[in-house]
Amino acid sequence: MIKVGIIGAGRIGRVHSESISKYVKGAEIKAISDIKVTEELQAWAKSMGIAHVYDDYKQILQDPEIDAVLVCSSTNTHAPISIEAAQAGKHIFCEKPIDADVGRIKQVLAAVEKAGVKFQVGFNRRFDHNFKAIKDRVVAGDIGEPHIIKVTSRDPDAPPIEYVKVSGGMFFDMTIHDFDMIRYLSGSNVTEVFAVGSVLVNPEIGKAGDIDTAVITLKLANGAIGVIDNSRKAVYGYDQRAEVFGSKGAIQISNDTGSSAVFSGEQGVVAEKPKYFFLERYMQSFADEISCFVDSVVNDKPTVVNGDDGLQPVLIALAAKKSMEEGRPVKISEVGQ
Amino acid sequence: MIKVGIIGAGRIGRVHSESISKYVKGAEIKAISDIKVTEELQAWAKSMGIAHVYDDYKQILQDPEIDAVLVCSSTNTHAPISIEAAQAGKHIFCEKPIDADVGRIKQVLAAVEKAGVKFQVGFNRRFDHNFKAIKDRVVAGDIGEPHIIKVTSRDPDAPPIEYVKVSGGMFFDMTIHDFDMIRYLSGSNVTEVFAVGSVLVNPEIGKAGDIDTAVITLKLANGAIGVIDNSRKAVYGYDQRAEVFGSKGAIQISNDTGSSAVFSGEQGVVAEKPKYFFLERYMQSFADEISCFVDSVVNDKPTVVNGDDGLQPVLIALAAKKSMEEGRPVKISEVGQ
Amino acid sequence: MIKVGIIGAGRIGRVHSESISKYVKGAEIKAISDIKVTEELQAWAKSMGIAHVYDDYKQILQDPEIDAVLVCSSTNTHAPISIEAAQAGKHIFCEKPIDADVGRIKQVLAAVEKAGVKFQVGFNRRFDHNFKAIKDRVVAGDIGEPHIIKVTSRDPDAPPIEYVKVSGGMFFDMTIHDFDMIRYLSGSNVTEVFAVGSVLVNPEIGKAGDIDTAVITLKLANGAIGVIDNSRKAVYGYDQRAEVFGSKGAIQISNDTGSSAVFSGEQGVVAEKPKYFFLERYMQSFADEISCFVDSVVNDKPTVVNGDDGLQPVLIALAAKKSMEEGRPVKISEVGQ
Amino acid sequence: MIKVGIIGAGRIGRVHSESISKYVKGAEIKAISDIKVTEELQAWAKSMGIAHVYDDYKQILQDPEIDAVLVCSSTNTHAPISIEAAQAGKHIFCEKPIDADVGRIKQVLAAVEKAGVKFQVGFNRRFDHNFKAIKDRVVAGDIGEPHIIKVTSRDPDAPPIEYVKVSGGMFFDMTIHDFDMIRYLSGSNVTEVFAVGSVLVNPEIGKAGDIDTAVITLKLANGAIGVIDNSRKAVYGYDQRAEVFGSKGAIQISNDTGSSAVFSGEQGVVAEKPKYFFLERYMQSFADEISCFVDSVVNDKPTVVNGDDGLQPVLIALAAKKSMEEGRPVKISEVGQ
Repeated sequence: MIKVGIIGAGRIGRVHSESISKYVKGAEIKAISDIKVTEELQAWAKSMGIAHVYDDYKQILQDPEIDAVLVCSSTNTHAPISIEAAQAGKHIFCEKPIDADVGRIKQVLAAVEKAGVKFQVGFNRRFDHNFKAIKDRVVAGDIGEPHIIKVTSRDPDAPPIEYVKVSGGMFFDMTIHDFDMIRYLSGSNVTEVFAVGSVLVNPEIGKAGDIDTAVITLKLANGAIGVIDNSRKAVYGYDQRAEVFGSKGAIQISNDTGSSAVFSGEQGVVAEKPKYFFLERYMQSFADEISCFVDSVVNDKPTVVNGDDGLQPVLIALAAKKSMEEGRPVKISEVGQ
Repeated sequence: MIKVGIIGAGRIGRVHSESISKYVKGAEIKAISDIKVTEELQAWAKSMGIAHVYDDYKQILQDPEIDAVLVCSSTNTHAPISIEAAQAGKHIFCEKPIDADVGRIKQVLAAVEKAGVKFQVGFNRRFDHNFKAIKDRVVAGDIGEPHIIKVTSRDPDAPPIEYVKVSGGMFFDMTIHDFDMIRYLSGSNVTEVFAVGSVLVNPEIGKAGDIDTAVITLKLANGAIGVIDNSRKAVYGYDQRAEVFGSKGAIQISNDTGSSAVFSGEQGVVAEKPKYFFLERYMQSFADEISCFVDSVVNDKPTVVNGDDGLQPVLIALAAKKSMEEGRPVKISEVGQ
Repeated sequence: MIKVGIIGAGRIGRVHSESISKYVKGAEIKAISDIKVTEELQAWAKSMGIAHVYDDYKQILQDPEIDAVLVCSSTNTHAPISIEAAQAGKHIFCEKPIDADVGRIKQVLAAVEKAGVKFQVGFNRRFDHNFKAIKDRVVAGDIGEPHIIKVTSRDPDAPPIEYVKVSGGMFFDMTIHDFDMIRYLSGSNVTEVFAVGSVLVNPEIGKAGDIDTAVITLKLANGAIGVIDNSRKAVYGYDQRAEVFGSKGAIQISNDTGSSAVFSGEQGVVAEKPKYFFLERYMQSFADEISCFVDSVVNDKPTVVNGDDGLQPVLIALAAKKSMEEGRPVKISEVGQ
Repeated sequence: MIKVGIIGAGRIGRVHSESISKYVKGAEIKAISDIKVTEELQAWAKSMGIAHVYDDYKQILQDPEIDAVLVCSSTNTHAPISIEAAQAGKHIFCEKPIDADVGRIKQVLAAVEKAGVKFQVGFNRRFDHNFKAIKDRVVAGDIGEPHIIKVTSRDPDAPPIEYVKVSGGMFFDMTIHDFDMIRYLSGSNVTEVFAVGSVLVNPEIGKAGDIDTAVITLKLANGAIGVIDNSRKAVYGYDQRAEVFGSKGAIQISNDTGSSAVFSGEQGVVAEKPKYFFLERYMQSFADEISCFVDSVVNDKPTVVNGDDGLQPVLIALAAKKSMEEGRPVKISEVGQ
């Protein structure tokens, strides 16, 4: 039984807290911190059985009983807090992305390596039952050599413009998961990216300097080709599909729904829409990624989403952004590595 | 190349004529007869390349060049015309049902046997791609021993009341195909029937002495159990499904649609309704049953839907009717055989 | 926050304990009892945070702090324990079936009524996302008047013969859920039953006096017709489907799988098998039925699966058994009510 | 009733001949020509009821009774024969591609315009029930403004290397249909192309100077983005899918199969593979494109796949080839127009 501290009590911090309380065997939460400790937060922490609520994450890092921390604070603090946590000898689960700056990511990875602590990045979709089902079949060799990897990833609705402005752009905020998925499903690094982006959903997004629609082509080190299509708004719900096609076949996943019910009436044969909300769709994967992290700590195993897995999608996002801006394919080697 | 004559130029007679013209190699239509020869019929026959239009089917039977006849006249004439045709040495394709009277059916079968002519009954669904796909897997042993055979058969809309009154009842007019299908898919005869029928679609059907909704349970000679559910009106279209479940697995078929298109929108994920009209749904099977009949004639093979296959569903329908009337299971041996 | 006691620490008792610990807000388990208290049970109870482990359920009934009990003991003790619990003023969640004897069930219902306690029967499938999706659409009027209600319910494998011998027969052990489902989905009582049963899976089941395959037709008070098909062994997994067909359309549910992954290869287009184990398939429904029960207690609402809902399926099972034995349809009024 | 002549009696010439004989009302074939008239061809022509078999297509062009010709000869002869046919006043159905050279295509279009004859190019997939179902919904406005158009097009097996060498390359031989489909489904022209190609199926294809795997991104004039993925070999069959995603929803089509049968067994839940052979998959569309062409001729309507529809996909293919060779996006304006 390890003790964990959670840094950041926003949405994702609370999601992980609930997961640990309900599903994760082998870990208990000793403390949570947030820059703003409200009465509501204290009541919530109490209801979760969390003993301590701090307004400074350093109190968590200083507690010798705490084995591991979950860095769930705002993105720009992921790197410095992770470095401090490593220096304090805490194992680290860090939300994605580590940072938008390659140099800072490398500093984190260096600090982690020096401290010899576990480090896992929050690419939860790797733990989702559907994506794992593809991965397992690919690893088992059932589709032979991968030739084409396709990811369709569309949000049910665009975020508020205020959020868009500080999000770092769609490639860093949304497509980052898909870049990770291309690597995960193919088992290969990306070498070159070509991105086409448009503003088709909401012109305000364009005014804010971002895009809402994109198709990205990725060359992989193993010779395969990846392709991602994104939209900020699919009116029918959260569209999360993928396909890996190879020399011996293809495997594809479709969307999850609330039930298998199909209605046949005068208007057609109607199935349910995909689950709408990302927490509804991916809740189990959030729990499973934390269980897996805890298992790595308790049983001294390598984490399954390691530092390089945190770095690579950021490199791809940088290349995609550059590609779109310059209207040409961009090699990963041009943006870092 | 054989020459055929078509007796009866109603809907099904014309369907078979078009099939032979378009799809059936090895046969040509020399003549068609109908009790009422209109100008429209003559023009239609000319457009189909049919040389002779008679108002008396005997002219067809007397033509020594004609090898085979298709009996497409009204149901009450199927038996006497088939007997005459057999006596005239013509091979016979007879629309279903041969007759509602077991004695008359047996007279037909005796006449056919005596004449040594081919005789096929128009259970076209046996030639349908979906039902054949089940049958082929069952025969291949893929589902092992059959345990449960299910047929769902629902019409898109009830026929006019005037038709209901002369139809012989739903079991003879509609379920007769499903009774045949239970035998075809299971490869076994039915020994006992229990039928429950209701009037739920249209009370006028009840006033006309018929039912519009039914569930029929059938015990089979091989120990398996069959079950059919029927409705005269499925608002979403012509519902034609089946499943055979056995010791090694199950095989089921779903409905055919006009296209595979699926629309995802705010209202849900919407596929097309099943094909609505029986000719649209089963056109190919009508062509294939005639091709198969022609092949039996040309190459002197047994027909694949023989006289006993015409008799058995009538026995089952009689037992189903008696079961519903008397509120008890009825053995096939009680109604004939 | 109410306190509950769990009577019976077998499989289902533990399932409910885990549900309450993880998912049910508003309830905590104070004690559990079992006729055999092992070290393993004590360790397990401790891990679940259950303070007391008794070898006599009376200790639970005597604890004034305990508001409600879950009767999870062997079937033959459901009735007497429920009566005692009612007399002790405890709210009762009773596993299905209450009893196989109509008289004893009525004694339970009388005791419950006299005591004015809540009483819910463990028909968990009513809380399953798929079955609920049908029910919701039926209640919303989307399919109009129900005409045909179909339930397919097949176990992945037959139970051990020793279990078959004491199970009370397939209708009481397995089909009882389907009888409940016909009532739940149609919103109507059953008036008459016709059952056909066979021994097709394993002859040993027949020697033990039971059947392993059945088709049951049910007449409903609202004029609709129900039909259930059962098998003790579907090699492809736990087959749990249903369909309600009515005047405005049909709604059907298919099986749940571990993932949506579909593999296309030389051998075909292969989806996953249905979930195999009933706990895997129905775990969430077990949690939801207890949450609902707790809500009824806390907020003084009627339970959603009441005493009569516990009685009716037993009556239907008795009628089904009699029908199969006597080879005729049996009215519910013949077996009780 | 118009009279047509067919120029070229290879596979596609015979496909069209059979279509006209069986399905196309309003047209009859008077003559067929081929540079090599064999006994087999003469016998076949006789069986189809074609009166004349010529070894010189000029005999067809000189026959004043012939209203229209189908140019089904080898690709390099499409342009000169079409020009001659136009000059002879014949309406023209020309197989795709018109030519690989933009200048020659423009000469054909000029000759057609001068002669005032009908001209249709053989993009048969526009007439396919699935692709038409998407198009109809897009035109009806059901998906709102198109944002992303996806086409997956994979052959069941690579052609022989000898064929690859003379095919003009995968973009001209195979993807040309998909380029047309992007235009057809989006209702917009393509403005820029980025193509990534690999040799992953068979290294011999690479030695022959071609590719066997590709992902192509296309910018459209209406702001939408198109994406095509191609493989020369999908072991599970002929994979022909598409999706149009827009502001109000998405519509997608899946593959056609021989039947709807699904087998559930220990190995999984297995549906049929997609239809394997392009003629099996697209036969009806070949018939329908000719019917539509005949309708244009008979009723003096514009053809639905006109000269520009023949030119544009060639321009896109040229841009795709250049993009792949130069590793950069290529504007359509760089290759012609």
